[in-house]
Amino acid sequence: MDTFAVLGGDLRSTYLSGLLAEDGYRVIAAGFDNADLPGCVTGCTDPKHATVPADCVILPLPVTVDGVSLNAPFSRHTVPLDDILRSLRPDQFVVGGQLSAPLKAKFAEKGITVRDYFDREELKIQNAVPTAEGAIQLAMEELPVTLDGCECLVTGYGRISRVLTARLIALGAHVTVAARRCQSLAWAGVAGCTAIPLERLHDAGDFDVIFNTVPALLFDERYLAAMPKRTLLIDLASRPGGVDFAAAAAHGVKTIWALSLPGRVAPKTAGGILKNAILNLWREREEGT
Amino acid sequence: MDTFAVLGGDLRSTYLSGLLAEDGYRVIAAGFDNADLPGCVTGCTDPKHATVPADCVILPLPVTVDGVSLNAPFSRHTVPLDDILRSLRPDQFVVGGQLSAPLKAKFAEKGITVRDYFDREELKIQNAVPTAEGAIQLAMEELPVTLDGCECLVTGYGRISRVLTARLIALGAHVTVAARRCQSLAWAGVAGCTAIPLERLHDAGDFDVIFNTVPALLFDERYLAAMPKRTLLIDLASRPGGVDFAAAAAHGVKTIWALSLPGRVAPKTAGGILKNAILNLWREREEGT
Amino acid sequence: MDTFAVLGGDLRSTYLSGLLAEDGYRVIAAGFDNADLPGCVTGCTDPKHATVPADCVILPLPVTVDGVSLNAPFSRHTVPLDDILRSLRPDQFVVGGQLSAPLKAKFAEKGITVRDYFDREELKIQNAVPTAEGAIQLAMEELPVTLDGCECLVTGYGRISRVLTARLIALGAHVTVAARRCQSLAWAGVAGCTAIPLERLHDAGDFDVIFNTVPALLFDERYLAAMPKRTLLIDLASRPGGVDFAAAAAHGVKTIWALSLPGRVAPKTAGGILKNAILNLWREREEGT
Amino acid sequence: MDTFAVLGGDLRSTYLSGLLAEDGYRVIAAGFDNADLPGCVTGCTDPKHATVPADCVILPLPVTVDGVSLNAPFSRHTVPLDDILRSLRPDQFVVGGQLSAPLKAKFAEKGITVRDYFDREELKIQNAVPTAEGAIQLAMEELPVTLDGCECLVTGYGRISRVLTARLIALGAHVTVAARRCQSLAWAGVAGCTAIPLERLHDAGDFDVIFNTVPALLFDERYLAAMPKRTLLIDLASRPGGVDFAAAAAHGVKTIWALSLPGRVAPKTAGGILKNAILNLWREREEGT
Repeated sequence: MDTFAVLGGDLRSTYLSGLLAEDGYRVIAAGFDNADLPGCVTGCTDPKHATVPADCVILPLPVTVDGVSLNAPFSRHTVPLDDILRSLRPDQFVVGGQLSAPLKAKFAEKGITVRDYFDREELKIQNAVPTAEGAIQLAMEELPVTLDGCECLVTGYGRISRVLTARLIALGAHVTVAARRCQSLAWAGVAGCTAIPLERLHDAGDFDVIFNTVPALLFDERYLAAMPKRTLLIDLASRPGGVDFAAAAAHGVKTIWALSLPGRVAPKTAGGILKNAILNLWREREEGT
Repeated sequence: MDTFAVLGGDLRSTYLSGLLAEDGYRVIAAGFDNADLPGCVTGCTDPKHATVPADCVILPLPVTVDGVSLNAPFSRHTVPLDDILRSLRPDQFVVGGQLSAPLKAKFAEKGITVRDYFDREELKIQNAVPTAEGAIQLAMEELPVTLDGCECLVTGYGRISRVLTARLIALGAHVTVAARRCQSLAWAGVAGCTAIPLERLHDAGDFDVIFNTVPALLFDERYLAAMPKRTLLIDLASRPGGVDFAAAAAHGVKTIWALSLPGRVAPKTAGGILKNAILNLWREREEGT
Repeated sequence: MDTFAVLGGDLRSTYLSGLLAEDGYRVIAAGFDNADLPGCVTGCTDPKHATVPADCVILPLPVTVDGVSLNAPFSRHTVPLDDILRSLRPDQFVVGGQLSAPLKAKFAEKGITVRDYFDREELKIQNAVPTAEGAIQLAMEELPVTLDGCECLVTGYGRISRVLTARLIALGAHVTVAARRCQSLAWAGVAGCTAIPLERLHDAGDFDVIFNTVPALLFDERYLAAMPKRTLLIDLASRPGGVDFAAAAAHGVKTIWALSLPGRVAPKTAGGILKNAILNLWREREEGT
Repeated sequence: MDTFAVLGGDLRSTYLSGLLAEDGYRVIAAGFDNADLPGCVTGCTDPKHATVPADCVILPLPVTVDGVSLNAPFSRHTVPLDDILRSLRPDQFVVGGQLSAPLKAKFAEKGITVRDYFDREELKIQNAVPTAEGAIQLAMEELPVTLDGCECLVTGYGRISRVLTARLIALGAHVTVAARRCQSLAWAGVAGCTAIPLERLHDAGDFDVIFNTVPALLFDERYLAAMPKRTLLIDLASRPGGVDFAAAAAHGVKTIWALSLPGRVAPKTAGGILKNAILNLWREREEGT
């Protein structure tokens, strides 16, 4: 029976530890002294007690916020990453989320390979579902109209946009997709959206809500000034986002920059998505042996 | 050009007045001194100034909360219903929402017929959409999982349930419907739900969320005691509701009694639904002449 | 273990007999000497050998075509209904499909009650699914365009229309529903259709395909003369149908009168629907005892 | 006003010529002496009369069947490709479908560039819709059950599979996708399918219908021998297909090799897809100038 150590992290990690235990693995968790752990998970205060017996060590998402200590919001104690590093052995399988290059180098110095589960394509695809639901929840909360019959614009047609537009259409919204590539427009059209080239964004008409997924400044002063005031603008793009927020404020446009939705709106589902990516890494290691 | 007087009401009435004006009617509104009225609507302080020139007088939903004064949450003034009654003429067309029998009688004494738009079947059907979206929003806000992959139980298969289950399925949920009638079960099955007779509710398994639409005590002490604690129970049934709330609290079951969702989650859509029902009444009157 | 006798009928009855046997019942079938019966079903040539040991006797849908003999297209022999009647006992449970009043009277004379499974509401609802799929198949076969993006008109908004329009929309069609009642129009609108009053049918625009479900002459000479020649007209209404077929032929309008689709396009599903209705009758009898 | 010459081709080309004319282009067509051309299209017998005044010359899909003459099923005359080549000028824009390398070389020798619209990604995406509908039509025609409730297996998760599975699910089918890549499985799961790795195909259970989209021998003697006889196998993969058809026949497995569905089931839609790809090529040429 394989043993997993879960070190730190937010509610997603708590759920992750429980879901691994439900799958029949032995799970030891550290960094959760302020949280309730699922019954079948062994909690311990000292991370070393978790890492030593572990076959696989799971670092959180992100591994660290300040660059030196473990990201452990549910712990009263600060755990230096160096302490954890010192407790690891080269024969162990170590995974973490959003690892910086310097951090990876630090692990490599000690002969330890860390894999980044946040780079896994299947995780990015599956995370599109809680992101889309979170975006829909925000729109439902803020709009005075139902999504049924609602005029929506979605910019970009990547993972999030595909999942989001399918759900918006299923809820009765009229969805326009603005995208750059010919084939993105073809896919959006096949999916039941009105598809327009991104360069025609400025004369695409009025919308009740706009969901931006493109990390480039599409919604600049000029666009925001011309927008009807009732339009809600939800920015789902990662940094730097796609909205000139200062100009939006100046023009009275209601904007929401919605980052990291999966962990916030559906931590249990997000924990399950982490589990799936980590187990895929784990199994591929075995195949690779 | 027909003239409509909109007297009192909440945000729905504000939107209603604007939507009527957009349709080309002359609209005079009273009872909104604390609210912004749409530009094309004439506001006045004294309800008499609104009713006298009106062909159709629209009373709010509900017409009154205390039985004696107009329901006008956006007004600093209390307007006695008797004052309004006195300003009406038998040749005017008067409509209101959720009229009690005594209130109707009072109008009848003065020779004035009031029609209740809240009795209209098309309004009840259309209101199922904002109700369903509101229920979905609540579930999204409270559940740690996405609706995608979520185990849902819906009791009853009337208007709200039909619209709600279709949307839940479209969002990727697994939906079980418990209903009494053979034909309700057939419809639920055709719609892609697992259909079970209501009497088998107790052994239907565990759910992430339960939506009750039956106004009868289905979720009694016995059911609540046996329920997993993670299950969220959203009661959409009108009074007396379907949940023993005291027992739910005692057993640590998270419950939400969600009443009057359309006006709360989508007042503009709800105002449009009122407009549609009122204009249907108005047109049928003309046909009846 | 209950014993069912299945007498005559088409492919649906063959499947019905097999599905009953799969459910654990003892099944004896007569009237299928030209068809392959499922392995677990006992076939016999003389209907008496089937009826005598039976707790429940299942007559086909329809019971008779000529009024005097059993409807048994898979048999080389003609079996007079009178012979079957003579072999039945009042303690047996007898069901049949589309029983005429004179036929029911004939059974009653002998003290035998026959229930008509074709009257069951759940059967009518479930039959809407194979009917809708059959209609979609016909449209796919005949139209030079995909249903995706196709302009469809559906008249009426009863069982078949509800199921059909939902599927057409899911396939990417644009669906207009023309119906008489205010609440039908509300339901059609909620379901994502453009809803128009039936009296405005004549100026509703052009369509690629029209599905009629109303058994009244909506598509008369005047309508057919004005219709574009490319429009396909599929009549799903039972007798007398909704189309002036002579006028359609004269004006070169392509029409299909599609009756009894469930048995033709999905006999196994249709057999399962019969089984469900018959078992509901059977169980209700027990409850009634 | 630009002039297009449409030379040869099947029903798709007929529709293509009409759709170009509807868009306001001048269209001259040759190679259709046995077909009815849309009213606004000028027909001519000698291809030279069509090519000489043309800005853009459209060769059919495929350009040739025998390698030497134009593919023109609606013409009684055989037109050698060399004759056409001789009538073209280097300043003309020439497009064709499924051009072989030798054919392209032949055009290049004369200084004429031919672009292949069949290589366009947007055409391949849009063609997935008529292909999916054609596959659904075949399944509806052949299966004794409705797609509602039907157990379906789809192998591969490329363009056709994505569009097909979405429609099958919308029609109420239960869909399993077998695919090789981790991310294909993630996408299939997000889309509501049961996703299994391709190597577990042999123990994936029984299905009513299998749609193969992988052009590799997945359905070999071993698989076919173990398959239930009721399962319908529809092969949508291009040559060499994915089925050992000889073994299928030997084991009594019903198979359909469904090639080139768009032109067969929806020639008008297919013509519109050609038009879209050709006009994209045409506009990009202008941008390139």
